[in-house]
Amino acid sequence: MTHFYKYNLNFRNAFLTAARNFPQREIVYRDKKRYTFSEFYDRVSRLCNGLKEIGVKEGDVVGVIDWDTYVYMESYFAVPMSGATLHTINIRYPPELIYLTMNYANDKYVIVRDEFVPILEKNAPLFDFVKGWIVYSEDGKPVETTLSPKFEYEDVIKKGKCDPPDLDEEMRATIFFTSGTTGMPKGVTFTQKQLILHALSLSSSMKYRPLTLTENDVFMSLVPMFHVHSWGMPYIAFMNGNKYVLPGRYEVKTILELIKNEKVTFSTMVPAILYMILNDKAVEDYRDYLKGWKVIIGGSALPKGLALKAISYGITVVGGYGLSETCPVLTISVMNDYTAKMKYEEALDHLISAGLPIPLVNLRVVDPAGKDVPWDNKTVGEVIARSPWLTKEYYNDPEKTEELWKGGWLHTGDLGVVDEFGYLHIVDREKDAVKSGGEFIPTIILENAISEVKGVGEVAIVGAPDPKWGERPVAFIVKTGEVSEKEIYDHLNEYVKLGRIQKWWIPDKIYFIESMPKTSTNKIDKKVLREKLG
Amino acid sequence: MTHFYKYNLNFRNAFLTAARNFPQREIVYRDKKRYTFSEFYDRVSRLCNGLKEIGVKEGDVVGVIDWDTYVYMESYFAVPMSGATLHTINIRYPPELIYLTMNYANDKYVIVRDEFVPILEKNAPLFDFVKGWIVYSEDGKPVETTLSPKFEYEDVIKKGKCDPPDLDEEMRATIFFTSGTTGMPKGVTFTQKQLILHALSLSSSMKYRPLTLTENDVFMSLVPMFHVHSWGMPYIAFMNGNKYVLPGRYEVKTILELIKNEKVTFSTMVPAILYMILNDKAVEDYRDYLKGWKVIIGGSALPKGLALKAISYGITVVGGYGLSETCPVLTISVMNDYTAKMKYEEALDHLISAGLPIPLVNLRVVDPAGKDVPWDNKTVGEVIARSPWLTKEYYNDPEKTEELWKGGWLHTGDLGVVDEFGYLHIVDREKDAVKSGGEFIPTIILENAISEVKGVGEVAIVGAPDPKWGERPVAFIVKTGEVSEKEIYDHLNEYVKLGRIQKWWIPDKIYFIESMPKTSTNKIDKKVLREKLG
Repeated sequence: MTHFYKYNLNFRNAFLTAARNFPQREIVYRDKKRYTFSEFYDRVSRLCNGLKEIGVKEGDVVGVIDWDTYVYMESYFAVPMSGATLHTINIRYPPELIYLTMNYANDKYVIVRDEFVPILEKNAPLFDFVKGWIVYSEDGKPVETTLSPKFEYEDVIKKGKCDPPDLDEEMRATIFFTSGTTGMPKGVTFTQKQLILHALSLSSSMKYRPLTLTENDVFMSLVPMFHVHSWGMPYIAFMNGNKYVLPGRYEVKTILELIKNEKVTFSTMVPAILYMILNDKAVEDYRDYLKGWKVIIGGSALPKGLALKAISYGITVVGGYGLSETCPVLTISVMNDYTAKMKYEEALDHLISAGLPIPLVNLRVVDPAGKDVPWDNKTVGEVIARSPWLTKEYYNDPEKTEELWKGGWLHTGDLGVVDEFGYLHIVDREKDAVKSGGEFIPTIILENAISEVKGVGEVAIVGAPDPKWGERPVAFIVKTGEVSEKEIYDHLNEYVKLGRIQKWWIPDKIYFIESMPKTSTNKIDKKVLREKLG
Repeated sequence: MTHFYKYNLNFRNAFLTAARNFPQREIVYRDKKRYTFSEFYDRVSRLCNGLKEIGVKEGDVVGVIDWDTYVYMESYFAVPMSGATLHTINIRYPPELIYLTMNYANDKYVIVRDEFVPILEKNAPLFDFVKGWIVYSEDGKPVETTLSPKFEYEDVIKKGKCDPPDLDEEMRATIFFTSGTTGMPKGVTFTQKQLILHALSLSSSMKYRPLTLTENDVFMSLVPMFHVHSWGMPYIAFMNGNKYVLPGRYEVKTILELIKNEKVTFSTMVPAILYMILNDKAVEDYRDYLKGWKVIIGGSALPKGLALKAISYGITVVGGYGLSETCPVLTISVMNDYTAKMKYEEALDHLISAGLPIPLVNLRVVDPAGKDVPWDNKTVGEVIARSPWLTKEYYNDPEKTEELWKGGWLHTGDLGVVDEFGYLHIVDREKDAVKSGGEFIPTIILENAISEVKGVGEVAIVGAPDPKWGERPVAFIVKTGEVSEKEIYDHLNEYVKLGRIQKWWIPDKIYFIESMPKTSTNKIDKKVLREKLG
C-alpha cells in the first residue's frame, strides 16, 4: 500500500511556503498597523480556527463589509482556509442591494468594520439569516452594537491556533456579485484551485517587461477588496514574498503618503483612480516618489491621454483585461516578440491595450459565425475565453449560466479587435453598460425607479462620456403626461435616502424625447441614444 | 444544461497561448536549424497527428534516442499531446541498460537520430516489443537501416495537421529512469498536469533576484533532454515566450559559440558542465559574452570555489535542488526578505545553497523522530517534501514506492541543514554519507572547503572502511594547477579554527587523480571512487 500524498491545490498547501520563505516581509495597513508575514500567517491560522469555534461550518458563507484593511486581508485567506466561502460584499451598493445580495448568497456570518455597523443595525430585522456578526474597531475597543449574536474579531482570533484543514481543491472559496447591467446582480463563485492557478499564471506573467517585477517589489492594490479579489493581488503578493500595503478607504493624500513612506513600486487600479490621483493638487509634492511606479490599469480601457500624463510622472502603465466572471485576469499588456524590439513609448499603443492572454488563457475574438477575426486592428468580434479560473456558473441561475457558457466558451459580451502584433483592444463593453469611476451603474434599477414617477413613460439610461469618471449616466425619457425634471430628481433623492440607489447613480442630465428608438426585436436601441450624445 | 468547459491542465491547452503570443520567437538548434514558435507549434501539431496516423495509441510509450536537438524538442510536446507517453531514454547508459529500460517501459515506438541507429541494429532481435522505428538525419536524407518497420521522421510530420486532442490532465506524459547507483534503475512517471504546474511555479520564481528573468531572456539548458525534462526548461521557455537554444551534443566550443551568437542569457546545468566550460582553454576568448550570463546549478551541490570562478567571469550563479522523482525542481536559491538586504556577493553562501522551496512545494528537514530541525545551519535531517509534481510511484515497483512515500511524504534520501535565513543546504546524499564513529560527516561542506584552495579542481570525499571508526573520509582531487597536500591541510585546519568544520572531519588521505569518474547524468560517481579504495 502506497502512501502517495494527493496534493490539493488548496490555500493551506499553497501558502505554507510563503510564510516559510519570507517570515519578516511586511504587511502594512495605512499608518495604523504593520506586521510580518509570519505574524500574519499566525493570525490567519487562528482566525481560521476561531471561525470554526464560533460555529462556521464547511460551505457556510462568511461576508465581509470593510474597506481595504488588514482584517479584510486576513479574511481573504482565513475564511476559505476554514472551508467556508468568502463573500466580498459590495459596500458601494445601496443598503437594499447589500441586503439582497447577502440574502441571496445566504451569508451566515458577517465580518463588519465598526463604521458600517449603524447601517446594519437600522435594518437588523431583515438579517434573520445571519447567525453571527463579527465586529471590529481598529483601535481595538469593543464595538457597541445591538447586532446579535455579536463576536469581537480579536476574540475570534484568540480562540486558538489551528493547523488549517487539508481541503478538497474544488471547495468553493469565494462568492460575490457582478454589479450587472440589468436588474439583480449575478453571483459568481470561485474555488481555491481556481484562485491559486490564477495567482500562479499572473505571477509568472509579471516578470515580463515593462513590469519586470521581482520578489522585492512593494504592492499596493487600488482595486477595492470587495471587487473581484482585488485582481488576485493579496494572493500573488503573499505567494511571492512581496511586501503588501493596504490603503483602507481610498483617499488621494493617504495613497500618496503610503507610496512615499512604504516605497510602493507596483499597483493595480481602474483608470478613474489613476485620474483621481494625477488630478489632485497634492500630486506635485510627490513627483519624486511616483517615479518608477508600475501600474496595471484594468476595469475600463486606459485612455491614452491619461497614460501620457502618467508617463510624464515617470510612471510605467500597462493595460489589463478581465471580468468578474473570470477571476478576473484574462490578459495583461506586456511585451511580446514584436514589441520587444521597441522602446516602451513606441510600443505604447499596444501596451495600453487589453494586451495578451496570460498563460493558460485561451482567448479568441470571433465574428458572429464563430470564426476568429484577423489581426488587422479593425475587424470587431466578441471576446470569448477558456481558462481554468472562469466561474462555473451564475449562482443559482441556470438560464443566465447557459447564456454565459454557450458552446463551451465563456462569452464576455465585450467587443474587441486584435492589432497586428496580437494585442487585444476592447472597443465596446457590454452594450448597455454605464461604468462610472470604474463601477457599473445598473441601469435597469435606475430606469425602474424613474419609471415610477407620474408622467414618465419609457426611460433609458445611457452613459455619456465624461473626462473624469469615464462615463456618467444620462436619462432619456418619453413623457406620458406632465412631469418636470425636478419631480424626477426629488423622487430619486428620496430613493437614495431609502437606500435603494446610490447618490452617484443619479443621472447628470435628463432629456425628454418624442419617442424611443427601437431595435428590430423591439428593444430600446441604446446605441442610437449614445450617438445622439455625440 | 450548462456548457461550462472543464479546462484540463493538458499540453494542448497550456501551450496554445505561447504559440499565439510569441509567433516570431525563435528556436535554434546549433548552427543547423532556426525556426519560429509558430512554425514549431505547427510541426508539433503535425507530429502529434502523424504519430497517431502510424499507429501510436493513447497510453503507448514512445522513446527518444537523441542529443538535445529540435527533434527532441518537438517530441517533448508532440508525444504527450498525442496521448502517448514520452520515454526520454538515457543515451549515456551502456547498451544493455538502454535495452532493459526500453523493455521495462515497453517502448512501442522509438524516435532515433541516425548516429544511434547502428547500435540498435546490432541488437535488433532483442527489440521485438518495438512496433515502429522513427528515424531521422539532420541533413534531411533518408536513413538507411535494417530496423523495421521504419518511418522517416519528416514523413510522419507530413502526414497532416491536427488539432491536438483535449486530453485528461491526469494522462501520463513522461516516463524515465533514475540513474540509480545500485542495480536496476527505477522508473518514474509524470502527468501533463504535473509538468504544467511545475513549469508555472518555477517560471513564477524566476522573476526573483538575482535571476530577474523576463520574457526577453534567451534560454539554453545544458541539462540533457534525457535527464528529468531538462529541468522543465523546454516547457517554461515556450510557455513564457523565451527564445530557446539547443546545443545538440555538448561540446564546449559549440556551447560558447552559441552563447556568443545567440546571446544566451540563461542556462541550467550540473556543476560538472560549468566546470568543463570554465576550465576549457577556449573560455578566455568568450569572456565578453559570458558577462551577465545567469545560471542555475543543480544535480549536485555547487562548490563555492566553482561559484567564485564563475563570478570572476561576470556570471551570476545560484543553486537549485531536486530529484528525478520530483520532476525535478523543489528549491532554487534566490533572494528572500533576509538576503534582500545584502549584495549578491555577500549573500553568496546562501545563494549557492539548494535554496528556498518554490511555490506549492512544502519542504521539511526532519530528524529521525520526524521533528523539523531548527534553522541553525548545523542540525542535520532528512529532506522530505509534498508538492503537486512528485512521482506517484516507482513504475511497477510497489515495494520501493512504499519506501519512497512512507508516512505520506516523499523521502528524498538527502541530508540537509537549514541556515538562519531559511536556506536549505544539502550536506549529503544518504547513500554517499560518510559515517565515522557513529556520526555523519557532511561531505559537501568538506568538498566546498577544499574547492576554495587554489589549484584544486573537482573534489570528492568518500568513506574509506576503517576498523576503528567504521569509516573515515578520504579526498579525491583533480588539480587545475599547482597545489600540495600541505596547502589543503593548512586551509582545512584554518577552517577548524574558524569553527566552520570539525577537526575530525579532516580527510585521512588525499588522492590526486587525473579525472573524476562520472555517472550518465554527469554527476561525480562516488561508487567508482569507493571501489578504488577496495
